[in-house]
Amino acid sequence: MGDDIPSMEESLPAVFLELSKTFERLENHYKDMQDIEFTVERGQLWILQTRSGKRTAKAAFKIAVDMAIAGQISSDDALLRIDPLSLDQLLHPTLDPNAKRDLLTMGLPASPGAAIGEVVFDSDEAEELKKAGKKVILVRTETSPEDIHGMHAAEAIITSRGGMTSHAAVVARGMGRPCVSGAGDIRIDYESQKFVVMNRVVKRGDTLTIDGATGQVFVGSVDMMQPELSEDFSKIMAWADTARTLQIRANAETPLDVKTAKEFGAEGIGLCRTEHMFFEESRLAHFREMILASDKKGREDALAKILPVQREDFAAIFRIMEGRPCTIRLLDPPLHEFLPHTEEDIVLVAKSIGVTAKELMLRARELAETNPMLGHRGCRLGISYPEIYEMQARAIFEAQIIVEGETGQKPNAEIMIPLVSSPEELEILCKVIKTLADKIDAKNYSIGTMIELPRAALLADEIANHAEFFSFGTNDLTQTTYGLSRDDAGKFLPDYVREGIIEKDPFVTLDKAGVGQLINIASSKGRKTRNDIKLGICGEHGGDPSSIEFCHNLGLDYVSCSPYRVPIARLAAAQAAILSKRV
Amino acid sequence: MGDDIPSMEESLPAVFLELSKTFERLENHYKDMQDIEFTVERGQLWILQTRSGKRTAKAAFKIAVDMAIAGQISSDDALLRIDPLSLDQLLHPTLDPNAKRDLLTMGLPASPGAAIGEVVFDSDEAEELKKAGKKVILVRTETSPEDIHGMHAAEAIITSRGGMTSHAAVVARGMGRPCVSGAGDIRIDYESQKFVVMNRVVKRGDTLTIDGATGQVFVGSVDMMQPELSEDFSKIMAWADTARTLQIRANAETPLDVKTAKEFGAEGIGLCRTEHMFFEESRLAHFREMILASDKKGREDALAKILPVQREDFAAIFRIMEGRPCTIRLLDPPLHEFLPHTEEDIVLVAKSIGVTAKELMLRARELAETNPMLGHRGCRLGISYPEIYEMQARAIFEAQIIVEGETGQKPNAEIMIPLVSSPEELEILCKVIKTLADKIDAKNYSIGTMIELPRAALLADEIANHAEFFSFGTNDLTQTTYGLSRDDAGKFLPDYVREGIIEKDPFVTLDKAGVGQLINIASSKGRKTRNDIKLGICGEHGGDPSSIEFCHNLGLDYVSCSPYRVPIARLAAAQAAILSKRV
Repeated sequence: MGDDIPSMEESLPAVFLELSKTFERLENHYKDMQDIEFTVERGQLWILQTRSGKRTAKAAFKIAVDMAIAGQISSDDALLRIDPLSLDQLLHPTLDPNAKRDLLTMGLPASPGAAIGEVVFDSDEAEELKKAGKKVILVRTETSPEDIHGMHAAEAIITSRGGMTSHAAVVARGMGRPCVSGAGDIRIDYESQKFVVMNRVVKRGDTLTIDGATGQVFVGSVDMMQPELSEDFSKIMAWADTARTLQIRANAETPLDVKTAKEFGAEGIGLCRTEHMFFEESRLAHFREMILASDKKGREDALAKILPVQREDFAAIFRIMEGRPCTIRLLDPPLHEFLPHTEEDIVLVAKSIGVTAKELMLRARELAETNPMLGHRGCRLGISYPEIYEMQARAIFEAQIIVEGETGQKPNAEIMIPLVSSPEELEILCKVIKTLADKIDAKNYSIGTMIELPRAALLADEIANHAEFFSFGTNDLTQTTYGLSRDDAGKFLPDYVREGIIEKDPFVTLDKAGVGQLINIASSKGRKTRNDIKLGICGEHGGDPSSIEFCHNLGLDYVSCSPYRVPIARLAAAQAAILSKRV
Repeated sequence: MGDDIPSMEESLPAVFLELSKTFERLENHYKDMQDIEFTVERGQLWILQTRSGKRTAKAAFKIAVDMAIAGQISSDDALLRIDPLSLDQLLHPTLDPNAKRDLLTMGLPASPGAAIGEVVFDSDEAEELKKAGKKVILVRTETSPEDIHGMHAAEAIITSRGGMTSHAAVVARGMGRPCVSGAGDIRIDYESQKFVVMNRVVKRGDTLTIDGATGQVFVGSVDMMQPELSEDFSKIMAWADTARTLQIRANAETPLDVKTAKEFGAEGIGLCRTEHMFFEESRLAHFREMILASDKKGREDALAKILPVQREDFAAIFRIMEGRPCTIRLLDPPLHEFLPHTEEDIVLVAKSIGVTAKELMLRARELAETNPMLGHRGCRLGISYPEIYEMQARAIFEAQIIVEGETGQKPNAEIMIPLVSSPEELEILCKVIKTLADKIDAKNYSIGTMIELPRAALLADEIANHAEFFSFGTNDLTQTTYGLSRDDAGKFLPDYVREGIIEKDPFVTLDKAGVGQLINIASSKGRKTRNDIKLGICGEHGGDPSSIEFCHNLGLDYVSCSPYRVPIARLAAAQAAILSKRV
């Protein structure tokens, strides 16, 4: 307002007083800051509209906590006022809202947080530059498990292909790295080390800023704000823990991630993906040796070399989790994922493990699959090569003995068999594991299965005869129920959202009508056979508030999500519990 | 028996007489030729065991018909005595059981019949040699739609990869060509035009014999016996048609296959796969032009060139089927299946359609999918590119008008939308088709959907609001329910059968516990919304007797199978009807 216009207080003192009182009344009534529209016509005040005022996550947080402490609202009400997803803003760096920016392109908001770095197209190079003290952003068409070290080294990841649950997205969320996936306008030319978006060219070494919470990619560096975890944050989390009944676990396997998860309040590990452990260079060689072995003896020899490393993997997790339950999923991905793909890599790897390139190529071709998602993976590997699962079970049991010896605490292992579609598969593999457990007198373990195929859900009553727990693998269950590959869906899901066919990406928010129906069927059938069966979910949906509410209402025991999502899940679980009591 | 041993009649006349009477009594009692074990101890006759005698399909057939005609058994009983699958022996050439043979290897019995020919590794070459009057056997790692002409030209097909419902297997059964699929010991070296099995080398031009009913491959030529369709065959079929309530349709699209299906007694087309029509060279170019078009206008121009050809495709089918129902499935496979894959082919094709190889390569790469089975296909194409489905619907309607003008008979078109997972998809596409139908005043059609995804089965009540019929696509429904790719399962299903986890290949015999449960759910839900909804199945299971029995018991309206399986299905449907009445 300019100086020449008198203030309302001066020009209309009576109306101003009335307005002030109305403000106070409305804010007391709604117990929230109000955004009020009014007009004054011929000296008469008209209130046109009132609604709770918009604010930043930080402000909302502060207001809710302050009002609860002042006794204006209950702690339950304070919890209901905070959007769980807004916690991302409190946990990650964000772009300064006032900063100048030059938008280059957009992709999916695959993992929140903002980051600045120079463009690099190769994971090895990312690692080297990181060692040299540089901040880099890894840009790839897609990532694969062979890029893990590059993703660790990078500040953020951009992919031109893949959805919200593509490899890049899932791994980045787990690591807490910002990520923009499926930025389809980007055309990468690895050879000339550049990418093109429309008519703009970005070269290796150029600086970019990304905002993983919005999926935006900017040219140059944009000013950022660092997160501060306030005391208020701890208060909200404590209130949430009192209110919720659902347990919150985390999906994690590296000691770093497991530690992060525990610090964020995870009450257990809901999904430890053992295959991630095989991608480190030292053991990858042994694992490849196992894949290339021509008989069981050869496989066993190679597995014997992996056993001590795998045992130490589990011991490290057990030490950190101090007796909390740890669900360890036995090997899941198809074996060809562990073999090199390009001709160049094949030659290199063949040399390093002492076979000819032709042999390696033949085996890789033999293992190649048309639809790997529906292929020779999960417990199907355990049926074909029981020695793999036996080695993993042995590593778990021996790690338990070691850690119990060190600490006196009994590590709590839940051994999980993936991709079961028939009760018989589970029966056979349970026998393999139990026979071994009896031999080495292991006791503190249970065996359960993922329910991630429609057939497993439909036959859950029979499967529960052999399973002490079910963990719903909602990523794969969504893929098979919809017949929709999460790696490929990015190309046409936008058409579906535009046409109003799909409201929300079913890989982000659980599809209650379809996938939820199967979870419901499986829960009832499972409980019918075994009324104390433990039920949880471990897909990406474990960190999505609306999916968490669904799980609470179904009476599941826990949800498991990425470490950085644990606070979100704790709050969302509290909200679900509060709301269900109020109905 | 030598001359020096007296016959039983001579040495033990009383016992012989008793035995003869017992034989007669047993055969009258069981109304079947008996295979009897007996012993004579100290002059006393002991009958140890009796059972119906084993016989060839032909003999069993003859005995059953003769006994029914003689009034010894009813026609229903005659029908129950014939194994439907044994009809394959009557419909296809078989190996002479006494012929010498040199077994090379085994694969899956993918399509019955025996054949002799010389080895060829390329479909174009197969066609040329056929034109030159040679008989060839096409040997490929896998086949793809681009091999159709080669499969037509070949006497038989062998693949080293793929299961009972791989492309090769399905297409071969449809054509009535013998096929051995997934012969995993065969290592093909296309470059040097040979393949190796263990230590044996087979070169291009070498003669092989295959038995598609057993999956055996022999070196050289083995003597064969030709089938004769007897009068008895017609009698059995006539009795079967009286007994059964299930309708039998065929999966067919070429005029040749449609004619064969009708001759074998198909009462309609249950699945006309329109994409097969696009693989002929003349139209493939237009279709590729459509795929490469950068906008809707470009796609519409290319589709306009395909319209007249597609219209004539449908007209030909309508003429043959003379008013019988024809279920026409709109485009189903992902677009990348229509693009060339090898660098060599890309260069060739690019030249022929007037784009650069780089452009074509880029588009092919853009369209490539990690899991094509779960990708951008079926009605998802219709949502992204409604102009494709609109062109196909127009071709159907215009073909109806043409054929009605010629014959006065109204062709009965059932337009089927594939891969539906949400009611909204069907609603949108129905609107596209109905708007067009109203515009050109088409009336004699209905719109329905495949139920081939678990989500569609679970939401069948809502989907039935927009569907006048459901056709269960049991191939894909099995793939998604089990999370099992039929192209990849061949590698480990043998382990599963060995371990007793799976009794029968679920792609051959319907999995009643899992997939059957979904069919049951969908049927009930569908009927709840629309009590006269027409229900059928059109997967490969439509030709499998035990699956047919399941469909009969569920009260489905029809099953649809490969043309050569129609007689099997007619008999199996009759048996199911007879047995269900007797319970």
